[in-house]
Amino acid sequence: MSVEDPLASWHDGPAKSAILEFVRAVTQPGTGFVPVAERLATFDNDGTLWCEKPMYPQADFLLRRWAEQVSADPVKASEQPWKAVAERDEAWLADILNQMPDLIKGVTLAYDGITTQAFDDAVRSFFETAEHPVFGTPYTQCAFGPMRELLDLLVANDFAVYICSAGGRDFVRVVAEEMYAIPRDRVIGSGTTLEYRDGDIYRTAGIEQPIDDGPGKPVHIWTRTGRKPLFAGGNADGDAAMLETARFALLVKHDDAEREFAYDNGARKALAQAVSRGWTVASMKDDFKTIF
Amino acid sequence: MSVEDPLASWHDGPAKSAILEFVRAVTQPGTGFVPVAERLATFDNDGTLWCEKPMYPQADFLLRRWAEQVSADPVKASEQPWKAVAERDEAWLADILNQMPDLIKGVTLAYDGITTQAFDDAVRSFFETAEHPVFGTPYTQCAFGPMRELLDLLVANDFAVYICSAGGRDFVRVVAEEMYAIPRDRVIGSGTTLEYRDGDIYRTAGIEQPIDDGPGKPVHIWTRTGRKPLFAGGNADGDAAMLETARFALLVKHDDAEREFAYDNGARKALAQAVSRGWTVASMKDDFKTIF
Repeated sequence: MSVEDPLASWHDGPAKSAILEFVRAVTQPGTGFVPVAERLATFDNDGTLWCEKPMYPQADFLLRRWAEQVSADPVKASEQPWKAVAERDEAWLADILNQMPDLIKGVTLAYDGITTQAFDDAVRSFFETAEHPVFGTPYTQCAFGPMRELLDLLVANDFAVYICSAGGRDFVRVVAEEMYAIPRDRVIGSGTTLEYRDGDIYRTAGIEQPIDDGPGKPVHIWTRTGRKPLFAGGNADGDAAMLETARFALLVKHDDAEREFAYDNGARKALAQAVSRGWTVASMKDDFKTIF
Repeated sequence: MSVEDPLASWHDGPAKSAILEFVRAVTQPGTGFVPVAERLATFDNDGTLWCEKPMYPQADFLLRRWAEQVSADPVKASEQPWKAVAERDEAWLADILNQMPDLIKGVTLAYDGITTQAFDDAVRSFFETAEHPVFGTPYTQCAFGPMRELLDLLVANDFAVYICSAGGRDFVRVVAEEMYAIPRDRVIGSGTTLEYRDGDIYRTAGIEQPIDDGPGKPVHIWTRTGRKPLFAGGNADGDAAMLETARFALLVKHDDAEREFAYDNGARKALAQAVSRGWTVASMKDDFKTIF
């Protein structure tokens, strides 16, 4: 982060100005000043801090695990979602978010019964070897540079910065420090149910309710921090509830087909709300000098 | 906290020595050194950080609320737990932890449907006026001084210090900063279910699972921090699972009938485990120079 320009990888424009002006207003003496203890910032992860196309990194992680499970136990190939993996049924997999019971079964049974530490190790091993299917770089290099710069700016201004991901809390935690300089205890997200026995914590085959998406995001943020965010960033309809609770809301718009991906599927309501509620929109095409 | 003696209100003895030696070992270069990021400390609240006798402060808060609800709607007096309050049935109330369905009904219906902010206000108003029934001082003055000193020592040594209460997270949060210098986002505890709508977060009539007691404590600590504690403090059987996961476990023993209360009901298993597992026991009678 440059001292002269803390958002050097952002083009000058309304988004950059609005962010810098808000941070100045809440940190400098004056009517807008906010005490350090109340400076909470929360960011969605998939599509907001790192690239989520052509598939969520966690989906890649799961597909590999399901393939591994089919190899170990071919009987599994008769049942979804393992069947789709065994048969390379791309259409079924592309539509997986609409196959909720099968998806949940696949998610909860991918790693049930192991300790949280063993899961942590499996995630670490994935990130050490897996590469983004289009860019060919490790997923750990697929964070958006301008957003990382924004996180650093907020931390430098004494914000407590949290990641608030609809994806797996215990998945994101493994790389949050390296990718974003966000410590493990500042990662909020969805999780499987857990069970304590004999000195250790085990994953069990359920999903913690609510999941950390849509109206679940402000609930997760409250239970974890006891506050509503002062600053929040998202990119999709599932982030709208969180953005509604924030004093400053930033919506990342994926409109750069050349350098990343252009899509507004799953973000149309949020983009409309941005207009009606005056949220700040960061166009990846117009506001980001660099992407990764 | 005195620079020469950071635990000045503890008598010299095995508990004080063990604590100081452990903190020294994990913070000084050497084989026992633990990086700052991994220095997590977790403390139970009722009976560990503040006085829980003759009743939990939160029980006092609830009894007042139930009385208020009976006044507003006398029909409630026909149903437990409001009936016991209306009839001043001390025996029923003393046994309330064994009346689980009625207790849960009373807890969840005491403040359901209001915003988390309105609940926060109600708790604040309670602490501003309520007094400890025996000592006659505000509950905010019923924290154990030597334990507060210990929290300060750990914070000064770069521990992330969390409260992990079987009682209500949103109850303890209101006074954690004032009583313990622990910020809101470092309070873990049991909670009612919550719901987001129209920009605000509302309490609903359920209990988040698991509650933050017994085996639920290590689970809550993991979901909130992604770690097991390096240092943990408790005083009861419900804290044993948390203590089992910690490198250093401290068990507060209530054996001072003169200055506080002497009781081991609800702590006998933990006291036996302290012996078999080598946990450090802090005797309030022998180790604490002052209590409040």
